[in-house]
Amino acid sequence: MTNKIKVIQYGIGPIGNKVTNYLLERKNIEIVGAVDINPVKFGVDLGKISGAGKELGIRITNNAKELFESTQADVVVVTTTSSLEKIYPQIIEILEYGLHIVSTCEELTYPWITNPELSHEINRLAKEKNAAVLSTGVNPGFLMDFLPAALTAICKDVTKVTVERFQDAQFRRIPFQQKIGAGLSLSEFQKKIEDGSLRHVGLTESIHLIASKLGWKLDKTEDIIEPVIAEQEVKTDSLTIKAGDALGVQQIGIGEKDGKELIRLVFKASIGESNPRDRIIIDGDPQIDSTIKNGINGDIATCAITVNAVASIVKAKPGLRTMADIEPISCFR
Amino acid sequence: MTNKIKVIQYGIGPIGNKVTNYLLERKNIEIVGAVDINPVKFGVDLGKISGAGKELGIRITNNAKELFESTQADVVVVTTTSSLEKIYPQIIEILEYGLHIVSTCEELTYPWITNPELSHEINRLAKEKNAAVLSTGVNPGFLMDFLPAALTAICKDVTKVTVERFQDAQFRRIPFQQKIGAGLSLSEFQKKIEDGSLRHVGLTESIHLIASKLGWKLDKTEDIIEPVIAEQEVKTDSLTIKAGDALGVQQIGIGEKDGKELIRLVFKASIGESNPRDRIIIDGDPQIDSTIKNGINGDIATCAITVNAVASIVKAKPGLRTMADIEPISCFR
Repeated sequence: MTNKIKVIQYGIGPIGNKVTNYLLERKNIEIVGAVDINPVKFGVDLGKISGAGKELGIRITNNAKELFESTQADVVVVTTTSSLEKIYPQIIEILEYGLHIVSTCEELTYPWITNPELSHEINRLAKEKNAAVLSTGVNPGFLMDFLPAALTAICKDVTKVTVERFQDAQFRRIPFQQKIGAGLSLSEFQKKIEDGSLRHVGLTESIHLIASKLGWKLDKTEDIIEPVIAEQEVKTDSLTIKAGDALGVQQIGIGEKDGKELIRLVFKASIGESNPRDRIIIDGDPQIDSTIKNGINGDIATCAITVNAVASIVKAKPGLRTMADIEPISCFR
Repeated sequence: MTNKIKVIQYGIGPIGNKVTNYLLERKNIEIVGAVDINPVKFGVDLGKISGAGKELGIRITNNAKELFESTQADVVVVTTTSSLEKIYPQIIEILEYGLHIVSTCEELTYPWITNPELSHEINRLAKEKNAAVLSTGVNPGFLMDFLPAALTAICKDVTKVTVERFQDAQFRRIPFQQKIGAGLSLSEFQKKIEDGSLRHVGLTESIHLIASKLGWKLDKTEDIIEPVIAEQEVKTDSLTIKAGDALGVQQIGIGEKDGKELIRLVFKASIGESNPRDRIIIDGDPQIDSTIKNGINGDIATCAITVNAVASIVKAKPGLRTMADIEPISCFR
């Protein structure tokens, strides 16, 4: 019993709920607390909100500090935000108590280039407190960064890394179809690009992780977002998409050096994508062309790698870690 | 110049030669010495034997001790043997000088279960001397162990791991075709199985690496070797294989618990294999079916990962490391 890793779940939204349920399945993990800033959840039992189907005897608090002071814990799983700026004060507060952190914050997966100042401060404090911080997920965190970088281990030369993550949204839940802009007119789509609600966060972080692992000093990165346009009318159970409207979204991340494209990450999610897959092409010696058939469901995978990372973070070197410099995570249970 | 990693190449056979040539291409690495026990090579310039096409100013010695005493080095790359028993005294001698080790010794890739005594002794001495020891390669070391274990990171459950490494030997060099028994009668093939000259070393180590990463306590492992038999006559540039003779070899590694097969590794190399590939199937949630098209050429890949590991070993935690507990290696140059 005492060997169990004691975890506090911080952020009880859709991802936090799924993570909670996965944590509960693990014999080597014990949930000892839960935090959410939403006052509606204050005092409610975690099991009631997460959908665990039973009370867990853990009341959700909105006072993280008080919880850290009163509860013995090893790791805090933080699923609160995609934004590094927003998660930063939470990270600092947790580190003050010397607790390890596993997060799903996209901008924290590889923040060294995009925000060196906050990265160094997190790293400094984590080392001082003998704690390790890691942000992970399926993307960013695995399929478009860790995995291609790891595949280059068997190459003597690499000239370019290309990743294609193509998903068919046809049979995904309706909120996912909405999230990718399926069914929007091109002007509505454009508005959503401008207000930021359509953007997948993390391509830039993935590019920087790959470049850093390969010793490439990039001088330019791009993150281009555009609609996938229906050539003819498409019907799903819940949507009718007119020809010329959006079937979904395509986002392309590019890393360049001296005007040459070295990294190309293509994330595409649309209704009726004919060849869904996660494909990695390493141009080099040897050439690698690796494909995960049908691709990976992101919701399950992101929550799974987060839970799997809990067992790794307690053994990791103190400091701000990334998937590039922590021992490989596996499904350990 | 002083930032370069100083490497001694230990073992100047076919693999050592290729490694030497790859090391020479790296700006972050400098070769400072070379050892081989073969007296014929003693005093000969490394570049002459490795095929570098020029003298390197490094004379091969058969006195490792003297070299370690007289030369400032960081890492010794050891490509001398597949056998843990045989490499053990070399490892101990190198560790006495506090040097890091990267090896291609198959039985050293994950020796914790097959030979815990030697593993603990290497680990103890390495820690005492503040040095790290890693053995790697494409197989064992990457395709049939590290990579499947790493893919499970995105799974919430795993029930079985299957790896198929199928190679077409049709266009490989003749020594490779001979090594896999192509063209042998079944009785000749059986003799070579019995004298051990046909066996691929490492499946058992790969099984143990996967099991350890997934927290599986196996109670049985098997390593089955059998011929791939020609159904009809097959001709290559150099061979005519009669119907009923061997096209090559198939070796199957199995890991079981409570009579249930949890790990299945199939290594097959034969003339005319119709669908060469490196395929990994993870039965779990989510299911993963990942294929590297045409598979990976083992000679290049093994030497490449060995050279790529040099940059990782100098940063690794002291002790006996494996691909399961060292930060992911990439093609860093």
